[in-house]
Amino acid sequence: MCAAFDLATLRRQAPEVEWLDDEAQRKRASRDFSWFSPVLKRALDCARAEAVARPADQSQALAVIAACARQGVPLTLRGAGTGNYGQCVPLHGGVVMDMSRLDRILGIADGVVRVEAGARLADIDTAVREHGWELRLMPSTYRMATAGGFYAGGFGGIGSIRYGSLEEPGNVLAAKVAPMTARPEPIEVRGMAVRDLYHAYGTNGVLLELEYALAPCLPWVERLYTFAAFMDAARFGHALAHAAVDLRLLTVLDAPIPPLIGLEGKVPDGQCAVLMVVSRTGVEVADALAAQGGGHLAFEQDHAAAFGTARSLIEYTWNHTTLRALRRDQAITYLQSDFPPGQALELVEAMRSRYGAEVLMHLEFLRRGNVPSCAGLQLVRYRSEARLREIIAEHRAAGVYIADPHTWLLDEGGRSNPGQMALKRRFDPHGLLNPGKLTTDGYEGLKP
Amino acid sequence: MCAAFDLATLRRQAPEVEWLDDEAQRKRASRDFSWFSPVLKRALDCARAEAVARPADQSQALAVIAACARQGVPLTLRGAGTGNYGQCVPLHGGVVMDMSRLDRILGIADGVVRVEAGARLADIDTAVREHGWELRLMPSTYRMATAGGFYAGGFGGIGSIRYGSLEEPGNVLAAKVAPMTARPEPIEVRGMAVRDLYHAYGTNGVLLELEYALAPCLPWVERLYTFAAFMDAARFGHALAHAAVDLRLLTVLDAPIPPLIGLEGKVPDGQCAVLMVVSRTGVEVADALAAQGGGHLAFEQDHAAAFGTARSLIEYTWNHTTLRALRRDQAITYLQSDFPPGQALELVEAMRSRYGAEVLMHLEFLRRGNVPSCAGLQLVRYRSEARLREIIAEHRAAGVYIADPHTWLLDEGGRSNPGQMALKRRFDPHGLLNPGKLTTDGYEGLKP
Repeated sequence: MCAAFDLATLRRQAPEVEWLDDEAQRKRASRDFSWFSPVLKRALDCARAEAVARPADQSQALAVIAACARQGVPLTLRGAGTGNYGQCVPLHGGVVMDMSRLDRILGIADGVVRVEAGARLADIDTAVREHGWELRLMPSTYRMATAGGFYAGGFGGIGSIRYGSLEEPGNVLAAKVAPMTARPEPIEVRGMAVRDLYHAYGTNGVLLELEYALAPCLPWVERLYTFAAFMDAARFGHALAHAAVDLRLLTVLDAPIPPLIGLEGKVPDGQCAVLMVVSRTGVEVADALAAQGGGHLAFEQDHAAAFGTARSLIEYTWNHTTLRALRRDQAITYLQSDFPPGQALELVEAMRSRYGAEVLMHLEFLRRGNVPSCAGLQLVRYRSEARLREIIAEHRAAGVYIADPHTWLLDEGGRSNPGQMALKRRFDPHGLLNPGKLTTDGYEGLKP
Repeated sequence: MCAAFDLATLRRQAPEVEWLDDEAQRKRASRDFSWFSPVLKRALDCARAEAVARPADQSQALAVIAACARQGVPLTLRGAGTGNYGQCVPLHGGVVMDMSRLDRILGIADGVVRVEAGARLADIDTAVREHGWELRLMPSTYRMATAGGFYAGGFGGIGSIRYGSLEEPGNVLAAKVAPMTARPEPIEVRGMAVRDLYHAYGTNGVLLELEYALAPCLPWVERLYTFAAFMDAARFGHALAHAAVDLRLLTVLDAPIPPLIGLEGKVPDGQCAVLMVVSRTGVEVADALAAQGGGHLAFEQDHAAAFGTARSLIEYTWNHTTLRALRRDQAITYLQSDFPPGQALELVEAMRSRYGAEVLMHLEFLRRGNVPSCAGLQLVRYRSEARLREIIAEHRAAGVYIADPHTWLLDEGGRSNPGQMALKRRFDPHGLLNPGKLTTDGYEGLKP
């Protein structure tokens, strides 16, 4: 907890702002979806903001920043709280600033949308769609998630098979960021430098506005194919990812997963499933490649009609696969893997054989550096943290890259970089932004 | 020449068809752009059709096929004659069938256009553009080239950085093809099988109609950047090809090339050039990456406004680079190379150093199997066929793939496959289609 917290002073210095401090509100604003990990759930459960600020506009947000900076109060930013690693959990108390009222869509032109950080991705997508565009990338939580939260704590998801992750140059073009100082003057960060704000959990600046590059809207269709053999399904995914077919999503689920996540009505028992969002232009090629591997079309629907509802297949993919499985079976957790191109399918097959029912294969095809690649969000039957660490270590030893989702530490998750740290020194000179998320931010001794 | 050629009989059997047989017409219809290669120019120059058929519709085309099949007359198909390997040169005389009057656009829906084989790519592109689409792939000769000629003898070009080559599954979805028989019944070929008609020079069936998959039309801009150092230009191209930026073209020209091809007004003497068609959304990233390599924007124009005119930068790329250089200096010819991903830039640098002014680097970035890749269309100062063969052999020994543009033989160019040969047996049982283009078609002894 923050040593010298004094809400009265904060209120006085930022009197226009809505401040919340009852226990239920503070608890709600101090949690995210890190309960996907039993390790994080245990570690982060008791973290609690001392107050929640809900600025209505950017000038109020600047007032909150100024007040906290003057008092030396930690400030943790929150979008919709859909992160999975405690991104917005205030490990050292202080203020959580809920950015969701900063939700204006500021402009749409030439395939770029400029928004305030609290704008919801679903609302942005609806707005740009009228201009013939769509968001390039969205998490499976797009109905709740915000533009700022996605960039500060997300990765990609729907659309990553076309455009890679948020980190790839070109997906996010600019950000307006406020420093954590007593007189915060917002700064426009453009070009390559904007990437230093990516996936920094709000530790190195307060995102106020973002420019997202858009994709042309295509006539998408959602399709689900079933396969008797998992490796046939995986090979189909691999072949389709390497064909000249416009895709928005390509997910492979091993046979035990569909009944765990509510797809038993669409996928016959014992069958593996490939879920995709594919342009109508590509449907025939998808059918032809599926047939080569013995796959059958089991379900189809228009994507635009299903989009934004729980009917959409995209809500059975990425970390919604994990979410749905967890709702049915709380003993499940997950991995985040990258199988290196060139030996992806071999490693998938080897890891699948090695762990059997303990680690269930869930593959997501995406691009990395514009190269088709295969990621895993395997469902793990959790036994103990020691066993989980062992599984992670074994994957790494076998050549599978693991971005550990069972740590709240940014640098342990494998995503921090020198540019991030340089911005941290520049925009958070007193180390007040989201403290405890970096091993190097001076808060190590205060781990919860 | 064809032993038993009898035009009177052909005319009688296909009386509706326009037949041409004067020397100038036969000569014109027997040539293509294979004069880019001094080897092919010498070898193919005297090949001559005995007659030219110009069917006005598909039923007339079938009548020509039937008449030739009955008489045992070789039949060679011709679109606009823009091929570079003698694709439509009638090595053994007989009839050349000019397909250019079969130019109907039959339908546009769901990102697919269906056309007759003789439709010009520029006309197709204009038609689909009204529906918000554009052709995925076009050669630099798109103003003349036809849909059928492109598929039967082309590769890709403009757009290959997004969608690869015509060979990739998904770019061409179907073809209606007539067999070379006395009673030709057209057959619809769909799915993976259509690829067996790709780049077969019309040796294994007569293409009547094609379905091309389309791309969403984007707000493209043409840009030309200059660099002092070639490898900085190449690295810039490589970085941009791997970024999340929508591109339609990405070409790198070594410093001696711009003044050879009419770009001296745009590129200062001694500078290397990077030409691109990039979405407006991606311009800022292109600028940022160029700046990292010391590049400067030298020229910019709207792509849609320049498209279809000689002003467009696309007419300085792909084999139009070669064409323009040849117009100024007839001692030039070219290579077609693929630099293997992973060591592309190293091999480019090594080959460039090795040959100096004898082989000038012209790179085209594209995709192969959906992976960004780097191809070369190097300009070669021609000394002798022996030296050219030596250069090709040295490239291959160094690990550079060469698709030899100095042979009229399909299987020597490296593009034939078992599926092509199976269709050949099925659709051309008497070996009359474009004879002499396959080492295995029984015409070896008759090489010109």
